[in-house]
Amino acid sequence: MAGNTFGTVFRVTTWGESHGTALGAVIDGCPPGMELTEAMIQEELERRRPGKGGATSPRKEPDRVQIMSGTFCPEGCPCELTTGTPISLVIMNRDAHSKSYSHLRDVFRPGHGDMTYQAKYGIRDHRGGGRASARETAARVAAGAVAACLLRKYSMDVQAYTVALGGISAMRRDLDEICENRLFCPDNEAAGRMEERIAEVRKQGDSLGGIVEIRATCLPGLGEPVFDKLDGELARALMSIGAVKGVEIGAGFAAAAMLGSENNDPISPDGFLGNNSGGILAGISNGEPLIVRVAVKPIPSIHKQQQTVDIHNESRTIKVGGRHDISAIPRIVPVCEAMVRLTLADHLLRQLPLIEVQKTFQQHDRQNDT
Amino acid sequence: MAGNTFGTVFRVTTWGESHGTALGAVIDGCPPGMELTEAMIQEELERRRPGKGGATSPRKEPDRVQIMSGTFCPEGCPCELTTGTPISLVIMNRDAHSKSYSHLRDVFRPGHGDMTYQAKYGIRDHRGGGRASARETAARVAAGAVAACLLRKYSMDVQAYTVALGGISAMRRDLDEICENRLFCPDNEAAGRMEERIAEVRKQGDSLGGIVEIRATCLPGLGEPVFDKLDGELARALMSIGAVKGVEIGAGFAAAAMLGSENNDPISPDGFLGNNSGGILAGISNGEPLIVRVAVKPIPSIHKQQQTVDIHNESRTIKVGGRHDISAIPRIVPVCEAMVRLTLADHLLRQLPLIEVQKTFQQHDRQNDT
Amino acid sequence: MAGNTFGTVFRVTTWGESHGTALGAVIDGCPPGMELTEAMIQEELERRRPGKGGATSPRKEPDRVQIMSGTFCPEGCPCELTTGTPISLVIMNRDAHSKSYSHLRDVFRPGHGDMTYQAKYGIRDHRGGGRASARETAARVAAGAVAACLLRKYSMDVQAYTVALGGISAMRRDLDEICENRLFCPDNEAAGRMEERIAEVRKQGDSLGGIVEIRATCLPGLGEPVFDKLDGELARALMSIGAVKGVEIGAGFAAAAMLGSENNDPISPDGFLGNNSGGILAGISNGEPLIVRVAVKPIPSIHKQQQTVDIHNESRTIKVGGRHDISAIPRIVPVCEAMVRLTLADHLLRQLPLIEVQKTFQQHDRQNDT
Amino acid sequence: MAGNTFGTVFRVTTWGESHGTALGAVIDGCPPGMELTEAMIQEELERRRPGKGGATSPRKEPDRVQIMSGTFCPEGCPCELTTGTPISLVIMNRDAHSKSYSHLRDVFRPGHGDMTYQAKYGIRDHRGGGRASARETAARVAAGAVAACLLRKYSMDVQAYTVALGGISAMRRDLDEICENRLFCPDNEAAGRMEERIAEVRKQGDSLGGIVEIRATCLPGLGEPVFDKLDGELARALMSIGAVKGVEIGAGFAAAAMLGSENNDPISPDGFLGNNSGGILAGISNGEPLIVRVAVKPIPSIHKQQQTVDIHNESRTIKVGGRHDISAIPRIVPVCEAMVRLTLADHLLRQLPLIEVQKTFQQHDRQNDT
Repeated sequence: MAGNTFGTVFRVTTWGESHGTALGAVIDGCPPGMELTEAMIQEELERRRPGKGGATSPRKEPDRVQIMSGTFCPEGCPCELTTGTPISLVIMNRDAHSKSYSHLRDVFRPGHGDMTYQAKYGIRDHRGGGRASARETAARVAAGAVAACLLRKYSMDVQAYTVALGGISAMRRDLDEICENRLFCPDNEAAGRMEERIAEVRKQGDSLGGIVEIRATCLPGLGEPVFDKLDGELARALMSIGAVKGVEIGAGFAAAAMLGSENNDPISPDGFLGNNSGGILAGISNGEPLIVRVAVKPIPSIHKQQQTVDIHNESRTIKVGGRHDISAIPRIVPVCEAMVRLTLADHLLRQLPLIEVQKTFQQHDRQNDT
Repeated sequence: MAGNTFGTVFRVTTWGESHGTALGAVIDGCPPGMELTEAMIQEELERRRPGKGGATSPRKEPDRVQIMSGTFCPEGCPCELTTGTPISLVIMNRDAHSKSYSHLRDVFRPGHGDMTYQAKYGIRDHRGGGRASARETAARVAAGAVAACLLRKYSMDVQAYTVALGGISAMRRDLDEICENRLFCPDNEAAGRMEERIAEVRKQGDSLGGIVEIRATCLPGLGEPVFDKLDGELARALMSIGAVKGVEIGAGFAAAAMLGSENNDPISPDGFLGNNSGGILAGISNGEPLIVRVAVKPIPSIHKQQQTVDIHNESRTIKVGGRHDISAIPRIVPVCEAMVRLTLADHLLRQLPLIEVQKTFQQHDRQNDT
Repeated sequence: MAGNTFGTVFRVTTWGESHGTALGAVIDGCPPGMELTEAMIQEELERRRPGKGGATSPRKEPDRVQIMSGTFCPEGCPCELTTGTPISLVIMNRDAHSKSYSHLRDVFRPGHGDMTYQAKYGIRDHRGGGRASARETAARVAAGAVAACLLRKYSMDVQAYTVALGGISAMRRDLDEICENRLFCPDNEAAGRMEERIAEVRKQGDSLGGIVEIRATCLPGLGEPVFDKLDGELARALMSIGAVKGVEIGAGFAAAAMLGSENNDPISPDGFLGNNSGGILAGISNGEPLIVRVAVKPIPSIHKQQQTVDIHNESRTIKVGGRHDISAIPRIVPVCEAMVRLTLADHLLRQLPLIEVQKTFQQHDRQNDT
Repeated sequence: MAGNTFGTVFRVTTWGESHGTALGAVIDGCPPGMELTEAMIQEELERRRPGKGGATSPRKEPDRVQIMSGTFCPEGCPCELTTGTPISLVIMNRDAHSKSYSHLRDVFRPGHGDMTYQAKYGIRDHRGGGRASARETAARVAAGAVAACLLRKYSMDVQAYTVALGGISAMRRDLDEICENRLFCPDNEAAGRMEERIAEVRKQGDSLGGIVEIRATCLPGLGEPVFDKLDGELARALMSIGAVKGVEIGAGFAAAAMLGSENNDPISPDGFLGNNSGGILAGISNGEPLIVRVAVKPIPSIHKQQQTVDIHNESRTIKVGGRHDISAIPRIVPVCEAMVRLTLADHLLRQLPLIEVQKTFQQHDRQNDT
């Protein structure tokens, strides 16, 4: 049973390969009557586009999204509204250099899914990594932009930023500085040192990992016990991004060494007096900001000689050419935002029946009383 | 849309509250013809039972599982086989002291789901934490024991163990030592110091967290791109355990500071020459052991005075009484095993159609050739 | 992927075999704060109990339902409310005479699932038909009673009745007469003739089929285009009852011979001027009563000699003994009600987010205007 | 929770409106290594194209399908194979005359979903019926063609044909004659009279319904007790086609008036001696041909004056213009085939794990024996 659909009520199905005709997403379950234009989605896509930052590849993809269905203007004017039917988004692939991958047809790149795709399917589209390419995440970002429109109606907002890259950590969380540097880092000074590290490693033909933090404002009551806890769902959403190897909520791994009396967030009539919980208790949001961090591994495509095998299990060495980023950061930052938005939009819609039902039951009780 | 079902093909639905009549699990999708007896499930339940280790509460629950449906012996003898119909497991609650929780009816314990359950549902069963109690995990362990029977048929095995507790880390992974100490620690010497730390903290009325590592042998090819990647599914499975605040695969957060050339696992004709990937590439298992670690927060129920509010948002202080563990470790260890087993059993069954289809397609091609 | 779960938001998973320990249902997704007691469920179970009508078997099952989880009284009094957690219902099997089925271990009864269960699973619980027994529907009726409580809050109601049995048709739909005869027939006079036909066929050792009609009041707007249309979902729900071989909505098969001008229901400011649509247009309820009819095949267990084979595919003859009904009617009538209730409860909850969202969007627009 | 996805393992999500940019389908879960070209899909689309038969509208849609993802040729030649990733199919809309629908913006056509879409979503795309248009079924037919490729590998085949139209019934089932007349009728003589009836009713500005029968060869063992019985799934699949108002399996409604001894199909060592069951017992296929019939209502768009209301609930009369078919037959015939194919492909893949597991368990047992 294949796994290209995300969400249960706000459902996104993505499709497409790195060097195929196009990438796309179908969103089923988006509420009707919500303003949605291509420009609103395009804005998010621009943030993850190749060729924007020092750590990114020179592949030039215009990444123009087209809305193929699901919106309409009853008045016939250009301001589009969702209709409740599936929203189909398509992004054509333009700048695909498939030929530059032909030498990879028979060999498995270390750190990549080449070998596992072959093991699973017995066939694989080797061009640019096929469906395992990071290019796949463009469809997620497009869908996430639709989720963002819904979240805004409920005053919910998601922001991701870089807190470590190549071993250099941000020393502060000044959210205003995020848009002031190419790495989406809330510490301009650290961002500068990260850029230096990138330049250095680029010369060596090597690559870098890092840590991204996501912060979201969130209504209380989202998350479904016991298996669909909000933290579990966020973990799965973020770990489904190719480069992510770890996820922690609130205090995360640090909580493992704390005492209960240190880790518990005291509660006052004005709210929680701490946020070690990362905004989630027993899998349900508590109204505090959600805080999630993800570990991003270094890009596996490097220009250094590596030991590997081919599809006949013969020993080979490989030096991966082509156009590659030095780090998944910063392009992974809007992807993290998208995945958290998709998760929250879904859990918001999962919670709405309970909100509606509570109102109706109370009204019913009042009617019965009179 | 509620979240008490886990898995897509091997599906487990659990039910029950800490102080209700019983706990249970219904397993739908377990293959027929597999030997399954109550004794096989009971064995796993014994490992997570209260009152077993120094860190656990004195609540005495016999935790006897009963198979209510889904097994049968065609020959009429006691050796039971699954029939392909739903397997219903029930564990009666016996030693529930609900009265000792009546003072918690109106107050929210810090670090617990009391407030969030109230926010979500507008009503909550306060007795022993209701459905948010760790007691809920007994049903998971029972279901996981059924998954284990299936995995064994495919030579897959899962083992969890404690690698840190209260800031004390295991210095080695000697799997033989796991069953030699109460904490399931693969380092007897570290286990001794952990026990001392537990005794110390118990006196202070405080609690401790830790880190559990899970190691699983796994067929290659399991995991479904792109959203249902095996690492994402494992992360969600483990993060759905109440006390878990972080999950990492293979090198995990350490990978964030590595170079690509350090993190990539080279491949030789004899297999991978490293396992920083934790056995998963592009979300699909590669045949190496799966390695996952989870951060376990300290038990929130402590005997120290804490600041909080009641359901009227009035300021209150609380000192949680009742029978509580000092740490979720060691009882969480078999729960981690159960969740990984459930995940692997599900993904194994999700992969089987592809295996079957490949055989049939090849046979079809041969027939067409002749 | 097994199929023992019904519904997407209001989800019911049933389990149990005819001659196993018990039958049960787990309901996940039932809203919190809804009054629910065992007595409310028991009342529905009484209507489908064996031994109630002339067409039914003498098996004596008390069919006492027990609520194992999911309800609680915050005030500590006996009036129970749902809490939003899974509701587990159990009905113990008492009067199972398994021995009387031992001669069926190796032989396939015509018209039964014996052969197909063996083909599918390679093993089957032959005692009383195992999971394929009509006894399985007791769990559906119990779950349907919970759905009924939810529907009542939204002023929705479902009633099923017999409109044909053994070739004898009800000539009118006097819903008051339904509870005046054992066959749930809205035409007492026809019911009398049906009883005579039953007595006659019982003597012959044969069995009878019939037609049940279901009528439901329903909010407009329920049903999900395009694949989860309300009529399709009702068809699946009802066809999942073992004996049902056909389903039609509104004019149904008669519509196939009508002109468009005859079949279209004209619309007036006071509502529709006809109900050939059966209350559903383009898969969405239109506010008119839902009208559905199902064809019920004769009970396949008959006391006449029949030609068949055994599990070794050897020719055999069989005369089915045991305690059997002459017709699935009337006991199938409350089962039909239950399945329609479960379908409507699920689609009601699927529609609630849209209702809530529309209110919120309008409020949002008003705020932005000012 | 929206309903635009069909199937659980072989999953199809469709999107698109009658007068939007395009229609499409995403198929997730199609096995890898299966030959699939646009030509193979196009062939099926040709059969349901407008403008082919006397009963169809003159709208001219080339209906060219494009495969956007999910296929690839490892050898670089044009023969494409599926890769196991999502298959995205797109059909551009070309000949949409949206202006001719502008008078329908505010009025509800009787027999159409105009009113119910408005009630459900609070907004609707009125152009050509939007998503409620029969044009939506083009995406189903395209997806069904992919399912057909899979079924062929397992020697399964589906054929639909017209058995009644406008009250005229086919007197025989000569499957060779189906392709000899425009109405897909297995009785050429009846087809001639049906054509006359169509011509007559066209002059009157009215429309006609009919009955389609579907016959499928099917492996035994498909269908999942208890709620996902194969007959229930087929009923839902077919009832999800807009014009279908009834479904029956095998003897169907006729079984309601039969005796058990008449309706039961006796079994011999050479197979069943009758097929009143329609190839399904207890919801599982028995190896006999599946036989299903659907009632198709007359097209609601007629050129006669009809009473209705507008969106302000004001009384109106309407005479529907535009380009409309006289009957959903014959174009619905390939749509019925597609829905049955999608259902069978899904249930085939749902059954494959059981087949694979049985082999592995037996192998395991043999190993343990030695």
